[in-house]
Amino acid sequence: MRFFTMLALMVAACSAAPAAQAEDGYRLWLRYEPVGAELKTDYVAAATQLVPGGDSATIRAASDEFARGLSSMLGSAPAIAPRVSRDGAILYGTPATSPAIAALKLPLSNLGKEGFLIRSVPVNGHRATVIAANEDVGVLYGVFHLLERMERHEPIAALDIAEKPKLNLRLLNHWDNLDGHVERGYSGESIWDWFTLPEWKKPRYTDYARADASIGINGTVLNNVNASPDILQTRYLEKVATLADIFRPYGIKVYLSANFGSPVALKELDTADPLDPRVQQWWQAKADEIYRLIPDFGGFLVKANSEGQPGPQDYHRSHAEGANMLAAALKPHHGIVMWRAFVYSAEDDTDRARQAYAEFKPLDGKFADNVVVQVKNGPIDFQPREPFHPLFGAMPETPLMMEVQITKEYLGFNTHLAYLGTMWAEALDAYTGYPAPDNSVAGVLEDGKGTGLTGMAGVANVGSDRNWSGSEFDQANWYAFGRFAWNPSADPEAIARDWTRMTWGNDPKLVETVTAMMMRSREAVVDYMTPLGLTHQMATGHHHGPGPWISDLARPEWNPAYYNRADSNGIGFDRSESGTDAVADYAPEVGRQVNSITTTPEMFLLWFHHLPWDYKLRSGDTLWDGLVKSYDRGVDAVAGLQRDWASLKPLIDTQRFDEETAFLAIQHKDAKWWRDASIAYFQSKSNRPLPAGHAEPPHDLEYYKAIRTPYAPGQ
Amino acid sequence: MRFFTMLALMVAACSAAPAAQAEDGYRLWLRYEPVGAELKTDYVAAATQLVPGGDSATIRAASDEFARGLSSMLGSAPAIAPRVSRDGAILYGTPATSPAIAALKLPLSNLGKEGFLIRSVPVNGHRATVIAANEDVGVLYGVFHLLERMERHEPIAALDIAEKPKLNLRLLNHWDNLDGHVERGYSGESIWDWFTLPEWKKPRYTDYARADASIGINGTVLNNVNASPDILQTRYLEKVATLADIFRPYGIKVYLSANFGSPVALKELDTADPLDPRVQQWWQAKADEIYRLIPDFGGFLVKANSEGQPGPQDYHRSHAEGANMLAAALKPHHGIVMWRAFVYSAEDDTDRARQAYAEFKPLDGKFADNVVVQVKNGPIDFQPREPFHPLFGAMPETPLMMEVQITKEYLGFNTHLAYLGTMWAEALDAYTGYPAPDNSVAGVLEDGKGTGLTGMAGVANVGSDRNWSGSEFDQANWYAFGRFAWNPSADPEAIARDWTRMTWGNDPKLVETVTAMMMRSREAVVDYMTPLGLTHQMATGHHHGPGPWISDLARPEWNPAYYNRADSNGIGFDRSESGTDAVADYAPEVGRQVNSITTTPEMFLLWFHHLPWDYKLRSGDTLWDGLVKSYDRGVDAVAGLQRDWASLKPLIDTQRFDEETAFLAIQHKDAKWWRDASIAYFQSKSNRPLPAGHAEPPHDLEYYKAIRTPYAPGQ
Repeated sequence: MRFFTMLALMVAACSAAPAAQAEDGYRLWLRYEPVGAELKTDYVAAATQLVPGGDSATIRAASDEFARGLSSMLGSAPAIAPRVSRDGAILYGTPATSPAIAALKLPLSNLGKEGFLIRSVPVNGHRATVIAANEDVGVLYGVFHLLERMERHEPIAALDIAEKPKLNLRLLNHWDNLDGHVERGYSGESIWDWFTLPEWKKPRYTDYARADASIGINGTVLNNVNASPDILQTRYLEKVATLADIFRPYGIKVYLSANFGSPVALKELDTADPLDPRVQQWWQAKADEIYRLIPDFGGFLVKANSEGQPGPQDYHRSHAEGANMLAAALKPHHGIVMWRAFVYSAEDDTDRARQAYAEFKPLDGKFADNVVVQVKNGPIDFQPREPFHPLFGAMPETPLMMEVQITKEYLGFNTHLAYLGTMWAEALDAYTGYPAPDNSVAGVLEDGKGTGLTGMAGVANVGSDRNWSGSEFDQANWYAFGRFAWNPSADPEAIARDWTRMTWGNDPKLVETVTAMMMRSREAVVDYMTPLGLTHQMATGHHHGPGPWISDLARPEWNPAYYNRADSNGIGFDRSESGTDAVADYAPEVGRQVNSITTTPEMFLLWFHHLPWDYKLRSGDTLWDGLVKSYDRGVDAVAGLQRDWASLKPLIDTQRFDEETAFLAIQHKDAKWWRDASIAYFQSKSNRPLPAGHAEPPHDLEYYKAIRTPYAPGQ
Repeated sequence: MRFFTMLALMVAACSAAPAAQAEDGYRLWLRYEPVGAELKTDYVAAATQLVPGGDSATIRAASDEFARGLSSMLGSAPAIAPRVSRDGAILYGTPATSPAIAALKLPLSNLGKEGFLIRSVPVNGHRATVIAANEDVGVLYGVFHLLERMERHEPIAALDIAEKPKLNLRLLNHWDNLDGHVERGYSGESIWDWFTLPEWKKPRYTDYARADASIGINGTVLNNVNASPDILQTRYLEKVATLADIFRPYGIKVYLSANFGSPVALKELDTADPLDPRVQQWWQAKADEIYRLIPDFGGFLVKANSEGQPGPQDYHRSHAEGANMLAAALKPHHGIVMWRAFVYSAEDDTDRARQAYAEFKPLDGKFADNVVVQVKNGPIDFQPREPFHPLFGAMPETPLMMEVQITKEYLGFNTHLAYLGTMWAEALDAYTGYPAPDNSVAGVLEDGKGTGLTGMAGVANVGSDRNWSGSEFDQANWYAFGRFAWNPSADPEAIARDWTRMTWGNDPKLVETVTAMMMRSREAVVDYMTPLGLTHQMATGHHHGPGPWISDLARPEWNPAYYNRADSNGIGFDRSESGTDAVADYAPEVGRQVNSITTTPEMFLLWFHHLPWDYKLRSGDTLWDGLVKSYDRGVDAVAGLQRDWASLKPLIDTQRFDEETAFLAIQHKDAKWWRDASIAYFQSKSNRPLPAGHAEPPHDLEYYKAIRTPYAPGQ
């Protein structure tokens, strides 16, 4: 009777919060949905007791995650036991703190500080699953790995898994300002509530750390690269320290974006010249202060002499001189400097795609050994499609990490479905000609030139929105970033499938449909925004919607017309040796391929070449007809996403289904707008009729030019 | 066996989302927690079937709320039945759509459109609870009333309740901008996601409507009184219409803040002169467009010729001429104009407290009959304490509604606990001398001068934060606002107690402790910020923290020093007849009382008088000593709140307990800051020692003057 009452009360309590219980995306891919009866039998048999081999904060976080995940998936969590005493135990820890694990003499020597091993082995004569690593954080990664396997309904009875990250720096970059605004954020305000820190430690901070750790992210730059110097004030460092304390058990280090002009902006010095001893001392003292508060502080990310930010060039010093000065201040504390190569000068009117190369190539080998240069995936700025950045093939003496943008500044914000895994894989798999083992960009990233400074940084799409990322599908990009940072050679389709299973469910039709939608989604965006190698056609400032006609902005490279160069003769940007010769920035065999119109991949055609409207594409279409067809293909692809999504209605909870339905409707409306506006403009140049079967834009060009979006988010 | 399995599965499913299930404040006062066994027996017996008498969207909303509330509180919801067929039925509807209710011939004639009656009566020979009203919205209010009684563990077996609102306009004013920023918002961004409307209808919009309806709020002004003209563009009106559709079943009308200069700002006319026929036609056409989209649109709220906003005075027309022009455009559609009296002129250097009176008193009787003048509770601006606004005693021919600020711009933002019910009651209960039945401000509000335009507006504290209001205790102010707008004579303590029961729980110690904390909380804020009638001592712009020394702002009345007038002789603002004679704006008997130092209530002493530091207070203390003791009393009161709160730890869920603990720590830190900085400054004027037992501020005045808060929220 008492049992019944208790159960009834639990059921009642459970139904008490219909609103809070709705699938609102908060749980991300760690939903830990209950598994079906058959699978449950297997899983319960393989999880009869939890045996933590240690008592660190990280091991406790691992035990907590087991309790959370197993109780949710299996109905109850196994008890914690001091040693393996029955079949189905899970033993997790390091040889240093667990004699039981040490006794197993597992092959951990190649797994480094963050790798882990999961093996189904007998322990004390009992069937057990062992999660072992050299450091506790590896154990935590292994625990997440096992739980995620269960979320995906994969077998766990006979495991022999060894995993370790290929890159050491797996970082989110938050472009979050101290006033709570997120530059290029489409998911609410900053998740850092600076106003209530350090007193109020939001549970969300811990859930953020859990999510990051579950995909191997091990660092976070808390503030915008357009950095307020105030973040370096003691009152803010105390808040930063509180976040660092929350993140530490999850293996996540805190980094800060540092404004190079801080000593001046904070009115403490009259110069920020990196060769001035007072400046050097100022930064050393600041570093000392930071490390007193945060002993494992990661280091600085710096945007210098770029888009108005101060930097060493203000004092006629080089990027290397600036970076090395900061690096010297951090060096005694084992901190690093991540120096961004995203520079283009107000005084330089050469091809913007060449400017980072021009500035950084001569500095190769001149950086201190705790400096890594952070290079965007492409030479312009996070476009829907760019060729890989030429610096990846040009810096044999300098460790390079790649910066990608998880938040979709140029890909339709949060309401457009665009899975970025395919985009990043395209860049990572690109052949560089660089003399590394596999000659790919991924290979370059894995080569730290002896410093160990290998990594990827992702500009975060995490905000205060309940669903973290502004849409469910944008969570996939956060997830995929973690997976690529762990393994730059990962398969984007496998990642999409894994994410789908954990986020939406394991129904086979659902998994295949959603995965297929994701895999074609980014190409759809390219088709309706910037097909055939066009780039940066977005409206000014907010980058929402089309503006191919814009040509009146102060600096040439801010104008979409600068990039499309459409005229009555044709369209495209000649970067061949007859143009800006940007092809020369690549390794010779790469440069030769894209220098020739006929060997340039068609997806990059107008990036490298200006071609006549009647140029014949491989399809046999003229360039003009092919361009129009690309736009329509993009719009049609979104309609296809809508159809596929609608077919999933019986398989998806109402709230998330309705939201994505609404977002796809917005995407379709926007895709049509992009198509119509772009065609209206380019037709005013080409003076050609649309190919048969392709409709005229419903309005004239002036109509599209008059559209304003003054309140677009993220600016 | 199957029963066990089902239960076990439900329990498992229920524990699937530990993070989402935490008490995170989302459910507000509609938590519908399961009731204990004994009470459950009674409640279940009184809720055996639901018999809706009608099928409107509003009645369906009522049925949904019953299902949600009863299933949560009682474990399951009773079935819907077509007629009363057993004891314990709940019959709800109007005589117009329910013959069963019509047959009861209940005394509904005095309940108006929004009142309701709840009676325990036999129906078809069965024991039943009847919720009856003249309109469906009254039924919905009655349903919430019954559910809330159950949340408070009150008996429901023998009810005879008749309720109707005393005011007709019970409105939230959202100071929300189209870019998502909320002016004076401390709870995240705007809940209106204009970017994804009209496609994405967030479930939160419906929950907002539920919360409002549960406390009788029947209108919402969606946008900031500093209004963007863009809200009147068709693309935004379509979004507004979508929100109106969501809110309509809950009896909530949508209103908009209208920028008086819209025809000019939108580049459609070269003038906004209200007497220009083109301007009149423009607004008529705009009103026609709005009503085509939103047939029950409420009307416009206007801030004109105030703080830089355009208005009729730009064309040498009066506020009445401006308001009446808009009123004429809305009149055919039964819309209204709420015209704000919050004006103070850049050219007028008379006492700011007199300016609204000076401008509006001469216009009494000159407004159209669908205009109501919206007057803040006090003559300055939402301070922790102000005397009531003199216009409430001065406009016999004009309907006045009161504007209060639910969001705590001047009371410490979201992290200070300050229950505003006591503050509003103080203003509402004030004796005006106005010849209305009870001579109180509440009486003035209830007197619509024949127009029916009676009301209160509350500047909303609702944002995108998970807990809606930025803190749990700020939810109480939203709740209390609804209760006071329903009944301006309501008892703030009863409201606090009701809210506490529903929000925190019904444990007697918890209820009494929390209620008592709330009841003294606002006086604590007054004591540590602006004791003894001081006002507007907040730092510039963001109004966070003290700035009593500030005297260098362009306009005199922006400066705290303008209000405190502290010098070596004394402190306070002489508004007596020997000063600015602001006392003359009140009815003679009120003015006489505050004109005299000895009869002025001490809580308003320095509002009306400049007094020497040695002036003797009623306590026998000098003014200087009394001032210091007030600050310390405020700080001590916050320490008392902290102690009381700590004693509740066993009775409150972890997340909400921890959050409020952190917020009270912030409040204590801030209260200390206010105390120290204020005393440091005033001591520099008084040149007097602190009374015995009161500590010197730990820093000198320059320290406090140097504190900057550049990233305070809400600006």
